[in-house]
Amino acid sequence: MFTRREFVTALTVPLVAGAVRLRGAAADARVDPAALRRRIEELSVFGRPAGGSFADGVSRVSYSQADIQGRAYLMRLMRGAGIEPAIDPAGNIFGRHPGSQPDLPPILFGSHIDSVPSGGNFDGDLGSLAALGAIEACAAAGVRTRHPLEMVVWAHEEGVAFNRGLAGSRIVAGDIQPADLDQVWNGVRRADAIRTIGGDPDRITAARRDKGSHHCYLELHIEQGGTLEKSGTPVGVVEGIVCVERHEAVITGFANHAGTTPMDQRQDAMIAAAQLTLAVRDIVTASPGRQVGTVGQIEIAPNAPNVVPGLAKLVIELRDLSTDKLTDLGERIRARAADIASATRTQVEIRRVSRNPPAVATPEVQSAIERASSALGLASARLPSGAGHDAQSMAQLGPMGMIFVPSIGGVSHSPKELTSWQDCAQGANVLLQTILLVDRGELDAV
Amino acid sequence: MFTRREFVTALTVPLVAGAVRLRGAAADARVDPAALRRRIEELSVFGRPAGGSFADGVSRVSYSQADIQGRAYLMRLMRGAGIEPAIDPAGNIFGRHPGSQPDLPPILFGSHIDSVPSGGNFDGDLGSLAALGAIEACAAAGVRTRHPLEMVVWAHEEGVAFNRGLAGSRIVAGDIQPADLDQVWNGVRRADAIRTIGGDPDRITAARRDKGSHHCYLELHIEQGGTLEKSGTPVGVVEGIVCVERHEAVITGFANHAGTTPMDQRQDAMIAAAQLTLAVRDIVTASPGRQVGTVGQIEIAPNAPNVVPGLAKLVIELRDLSTDKLTDLGERIRARAADIASATRTQVEIRRVSRNPPAVATPEVQSAIERASSALGLASARLPSGAGHDAQSMAQLGPMGMIFVPSIGGVSHSPKELTSWQDCAQGANVLLQTILLVDRGELDAV
Repeated sequence: MFTRREFVTALTVPLVAGAVRLRGAAADARVDPAALRRRIEELSVFGRPAGGSFADGVSRVSYSQADIQGRAYLMRLMRGAGIEPAIDPAGNIFGRHPGSQPDLPPILFGSHIDSVPSGGNFDGDLGSLAALGAIEACAAAGVRTRHPLEMVVWAHEEGVAFNRGLAGSRIVAGDIQPADLDQVWNGVRRADAIRTIGGDPDRITAARRDKGSHHCYLELHIEQGGTLEKSGTPVGVVEGIVCVERHEAVITGFANHAGTTPMDQRQDAMIAAAQLTLAVRDIVTASPGRQVGTVGQIEIAPNAPNVVPGLAKLVIELRDLSTDKLTDLGERIRARAADIASATRTQVEIRRVSRNPPAVATPEVQSAIERASSALGLASARLPSGAGHDAQSMAQLGPMGMIFVPSIGGVSHSPKELTSWQDCAQGANVLLQTILLVDRGELDAV
Repeated sequence: MFTRREFVTALTVPLVAGAVRLRGAAADARVDPAALRRRIEELSVFGRPAGGSFADGVSRVSYSQADIQGRAYLMRLMRGAGIEPAIDPAGNIFGRHPGSQPDLPPILFGSHIDSVPSGGNFDGDLGSLAALGAIEACAAAGVRTRHPLEMVVWAHEEGVAFNRGLAGSRIVAGDIQPADLDQVWNGVRRADAIRTIGGDPDRITAARRDKGSHHCYLELHIEQGGTLEKSGTPVGVVEGIVCVERHEAVITGFANHAGTTPMDQRQDAMIAAAQLTLAVRDIVTASPGRQVGTVGQIEIAPNAPNVVPGLAKLVIELRDLSTDKLTDLGERIRARAADIASATRTQVEIRRVSRNPPAVATPEVQSAIERASSALGLASARLPSGAGHDAQSMAQLGPMGMIFVPSIGGVSHSPKELTSWQDCAQGANVLLQTILLVDRGELDAV
């Protein structure tokens, strides 16, 4: 990952000169709030539960038919705005708007439109459609940036398919092995899944981008927590993104008849799984801090009411800004798992299957977001992101910043996920104004 | 259910006269052990895991393609033995062999061939194929019984499809409501499932048989527990079959983002499910006795690693010979569930979805099995059955008895389920000799 010094020295133009203040057309440029709302509503149809409404949320898991249809809808919007979508070998959708100095690297911004099963209509969708809205706003206001503007809709952000999130942006950051393409999920090889969304697994490494290939990466996203709403702050300036670790626990007991196997002779994988689930919570909450730990996925076999379960698989997810803390939690969970295995006469194997490193948002970009908010008359507050985001992949390639808007009740990854339309529009305008600020040190009327 | 007095008085011919001793051809009749083994092995192919062997067990869930193929195989065997199979409206397969006194009710015996997912090759299969072998042995030895002999292969014995076991025999005992046929499992209506195996849901009540419509019901089965093997006893004489209750627990929490929802603000349905699973075990083992309790099935939603689970469904199964004890256990589990709901800020609803009443084996039939074993030089022991069996449905219609043979290691409902070929053949001969004993009080050479 870049050091802060590299960020500052690698760029020929300072990200934001201290005194920059937008004036004229640039200062007045605004994202169309009605179009933003309409598009979020229209996009929500792809993956909506049968017979449901917007309030029933969305299941648009990456590579699903709903994902494919949602992506097609978004590309139609891009073409309508005069932006020709280009799909890279990883399946990410890019779209460029020219700047006045074509030799400058683009300012990159966007988000994703895939969702968790039974997710909401703002996670990713807002940032993706606000990106398009920001480019349209520049065009409408006659504002020409020096840097090209490049929007992106990342593929496979949620870690549902192939148990690996941020996959599209990771590949762009160079994190892909040939063997990864052989992973199978829902009976489909990852290579074939990538093909269904227009990617090209045979050329997957060509999706990689170099450090410095963009001027800065920006992403607008809902907070997904309740901090901003509780404090009545419309804009969150993300300080960094926590480290996310996933561990797969495989518990092997012995499947046997539930009627004929006495309680004291069982090797019940479900009992061990229950104890491990509670152990994760106990260990994570035993020390102070904002770390979280979740068992969100479980599968048992044979999963029949009259059979003592012989096998259980569960996924343990741990998050914190400190990787050291996660390493410590992982060790304590493993030690407790050994005790559980012994007490239940099962085998418990825990394997770390992924670790998304934490990513610090570039301080100069954080400042730019604060000043953009201030220029729009909006209060802002700094906060960490407990959720992972594609921005953390992009942090490996250059300066990065993220804008958060309030999530009502802190609810996300749920059909009840909600952000007010006003907060959506304000967030989109902070994105737009931050783009314009990082575009140049001194930006007068264009 | 019949009282014991009714059993004794309802039958014009005593089941077994005290002094009956088989002699001549009847005493020498034996089931062909090689054919029995070959057929168990041949049947195992239907539902065998791809690329697997006999030792890899079988998944022949009722109404599956494997079940349909297995039934077709069995009916081919019946025809080969000169027994024309008849499928009743519930999908049960019957086959008759005439007796010398056609006005007498038949002696009914058999078992089932459906399995749990990843089950073994002896549970049900042995009793079904031994039934056929017993009829063939009579024919081969020139033994003519007074009563007609009727073999049966019950449909849908395992409670996997439609979460209801012993379904075929229950319908024969009159336990079916029109609404039951609308149950949906794996996207298939129960009525349509019954059609796929040749049943006729439109005439389902015609499958019902009257009390006294058979002379006696007998079933050979593997023990599925380890009692016989541990004590080195080749034959088990079943005293009765335990009551089996199933309860469905639905836990409603609140699905939320696993990264942004602090630990103390969660309403995690998986945490509640884990606590309930452990509570079932703790409550069941808190008092002395042979009662068992199992959480063998669980489903959580949305079941994604990065989402705090909002919903969990699990099935709690309780078994004991005493229904009072089960009622008490159920009440204590419900009380504990209320505490768990309160502590985890979830809702926990527990509903009893089924109760198979206990069934006592007819003492006269138990004696006949003991004497048949003794005549074959085999030691026997009385024991209860922790597993449910079709025999408990038949106990509602007339005298009933069951013969157990040892399960190696007490393993069942598992690919590792195993009974020695010698024990299989011995059990089949005990079935045959018991049939002949209950056929008449005095049975000399025929």
